[in-house]
Amino acid sequence: MKVTVSRKAHFNAAHRLYNCEWSDERNDDMFGKCANPHFHGHNYELIVSVTGEIEPETGYVMDMKVLKDLIANEIEEAFDHKNLNEQVPEFISLNPTAENISVVIWNKLRPHIDSKLELEITLYETPRNFVTFKG
Amino acid sequence: MKVTVSRKAHFNAAHRLYNCEWSDERNDDMFGKCANPHFHGHNYELIVSVTGEIEPETGYVMDMKVLKDLIANEIEEAFDHKNLNEQVPEFISLNPTAENISVVIWNKLRPHIDSKLELEITLYETPRNFVTFKG
Amino acid sequence: MKVTVSRKAHFNAAHRLYNCEWSDERNDDMFGKCANPHFHGHNYELIVSVTGEIEPETGYVMDMKVLKDLIANEIEEAFDHKNLNEQVPEFISLNPTAENISVVIWNKLRPHIDSKLELEITLYETPRNFVTFKG
Amino acid sequence: MKVTVSRKAHFNAAHRLYNCEWSDERNDDMFGKCANPHFHGHNYELIVSVTGEIEPETGYVMDMKVLKDLIANEIEEAFDHKNLNEQVPEFISLNPTAENISVVIWNKLRPHIDSKLELEITLYETPRNFVTFKG
Amino acid sequence: MKVTVSRKAHFNAAHRLYNCEWSDERNDDMFGKCANPHFHGHNYELIVSVTGEIEPETGYVMDMKVLKDLIANEIEEAFDHKNLNEQVPEFISLNPTAENISVVIWNKLRPHIDSKLELEITLYETPRNFVTFKG
Amino acid sequence: MKVTVSRKAHFNAAHRLYNCEWSDERNDDMFGKCANPHFHGHNYELIVSVTGEIEPETGYVMDMKVLKDLIANEIEEAFDHKNLNEQVPEFISLNPTAENISVVIWNKLRPHIDSKLELEITLYETPRNFVTFKG
Repeated sequence: MKVTVSRKAHFNAAHRLYNCEWSDERNDDMFGKCANPHFHGHNYELIVSVTGEIEPETGYVMDMKVLKDLIANEIEEAFDHKNLNEQVPEFISLNPTAENISVVIWNKLRPHIDSKLELEITLYETPRNFVTFKG
Repeated sequence: MKVTVSRKAHFNAAHRLYNCEWSDERNDDMFGKCANPHFHGHNYELIVSVTGEIEPETGYVMDMKVLKDLIANEIEEAFDHKNLNEQVPEFISLNPTAENISVVIWNKLRPHIDSKLELEITLYETPRNFVTFKG
Repeated sequence: MKVTVSRKAHFNAAHRLYNCEWSDERNDDMFGKCANPHFHGHNYELIVSVTGEIEPETGYVMDMKVLKDLIANEIEEAFDHKNLNEQVPEFISLNPTAENISVVIWNKLRPHIDSKLELEITLYETPRNFVTFKG
Repeated sequence: MKVTVSRKAHFNAAHRLYNCEWSDERNDDMFGKCANPHFHGHNYELIVSVTGEIEPETGYVMDMKVLKDLIANEIEEAFDHKNLNEQVPEFISLNPTAENISVVIWNKLRPHIDSKLELEITLYETPRNFVTFKG
Repeated sequence: MKVTVSRKAHFNAAHRLYNCEWSDERNDDMFGKCANPHFHGHNYELIVSVTGEIEPETGYVMDMKVLKDLIANEIEEAFDHKNLNEQVPEFISLNPTAENISVVIWNKLRPHIDSKLELEITLYETPRNFVTFKG
Repeated sequence: MKVTVSRKAHFNAAHRLYNCEWSDERNDDMFGKCANPHFHGHNYELIVSVTGEIEPETGYVMDMKVLKDLIANEIEEAFDHKNLNEQVPEFISLNPTAENISVVIWNKLRPHIDSKLELEITLYETPRNFVTFKG
């Protein structure tokens, strides 16, 4: 009797799309205005979903207060009001597309969540573009 | 060629999180302000999703008017403007967490929906916390 | 050159609609299921709007971090996860309709905001019902 | 390491629910006011989701600009500000329920998306009714 | 001490933009694809706002259940699942732009609301286009 | 018989809050993490509202297609995927707070809109922070 519990959070960040092994021209061709060297930014909306059995004593799959604090400490603290390309170590040489950001978030949260629970990340880059990663 | 059809509904209710086999202190430790003995409440947003084949004659998986009325009769009638702990029999001895409420809703709707159709419940307790149960 | 700055917040609370000078029957006639003596509850969404001149040095009408903290201290601390009728002194003898709650919030915030600034409260009781009070 | 990328779009259209092999009476019985011969209409909100591996060079599963243009050319161009029953060939003899529209959209997009990628369509007919089709 | 209370409602309808005193060519020039003679449609989201003093006995400006029923009887009954141009008398010779629809709604509701109360209509034609009329 | 017509648009941009006449320390004290010299960013949601009489022939206050194109040419073209501090001339020496951005947008649009029409700008910096400027 598995249930999925989900918690929404958000962070604001600057980024640019850029493959550091390509020429600037090739980056411009591929990423267009997203490659702007002066950066642009987003209000990222994040949904963290955890799936597992309900614990009979608490009626919880996972305490949402614990999940909320975990997201605040591991993700918001690291990403909020930051320049992803310049200030977040994972993106020094990794292009901060929504796809890659969702994988990095999954990797940062996975060690902190009981291994019996499945983890899924949904990340809205804009109200019209979003990605989902299940590990 | 299976399609999932979903219908949103809502109800407002009071509740508290409370394990009746625990002391008040242990409830406070575990559930914090959610254990407030005077209750608090939520606008629950409910999504009921039904999956099955499209009937060729109607183009429907299930008539959404029928699903809307079913949710109104079985769920809204029982839960809306109620105190879940005190006035809904299923929660007399079951902690009304979002997880448990989603299971109770699934169990209340399942007998009324054709067994060929799969049923999934998504329940928003707040705009930032929600759960999903597939049976 | 006046600008209005607005900040959204929220709190969850239980309440019932009840005029303590009326009989139970008259309360039931007037307020229907909202008068349920076991209470029901809502996710209240609150928008606090402050209007005034932009300060040239900061580019702010009012620092939104200050406004956010003010709402947390004065409103969320007092109302969140509470039973409005039983635990919030303002509603011991005042019916906690959305209209009256918005006036109480305005009165609680007004002394903490510079008198040169206008204050407006918008309060969503449900996604479909909301009220606005400008003082 | 599969990721799902999703893009939202929308179109406005008129339709009526109608099985052309049934009598008007039977259509009225089944579809009620949705069978109104003068038509009614909706703001359809469309989510197109594509699942596959992240390309290491770009960090993309699929370029969202390409997906946006594909939806504009294949779906919005064909459906927006149209009468689905009278002006969209697929629905001349197929009842334009949300279920059938989602299948038609899937079929129109499938040939234009790399066969290594999975495709899923979510279509909101109203804010409270929506369908999902995975092929 | 005036408060504004607002109630959201919705209706789905077909329409076309068309000035019946103009040639088809001139209508096409002015209204583009909105003049499609086969019609298109929208999910109209309606907000009805009423402003006045709080009645001390009830704590209400106006009973929202009464307002909800009034909107259902006067507006939803007349407009929902209808073709505005062909089936709603007010638009036989009046172009059903969002502006004109908001004025018609205001005129239909005004006689049913206490003259001491101010009335305002907000109408969303799409999530990105909306109008407001205060009489 | 005045009606307000509103159009939503959006742009993504990087910025930092910074008064160029202050020391870095004073900027840090005042603006906190919003002063990050590496920038952060937002999905700005913009609502442009125009108020005036309905033209009897068209039923329009202002053609929304014209307003949509005007916003695209004057605002989205100038701000979208840009670094406001470094690439938008108006903010070279003006702090790009939401308040100041709304005034700049108003000034950029005002000359292009008929002087008989009133103009109002609402700008969401995040889903929880927004400003309104009426000129």
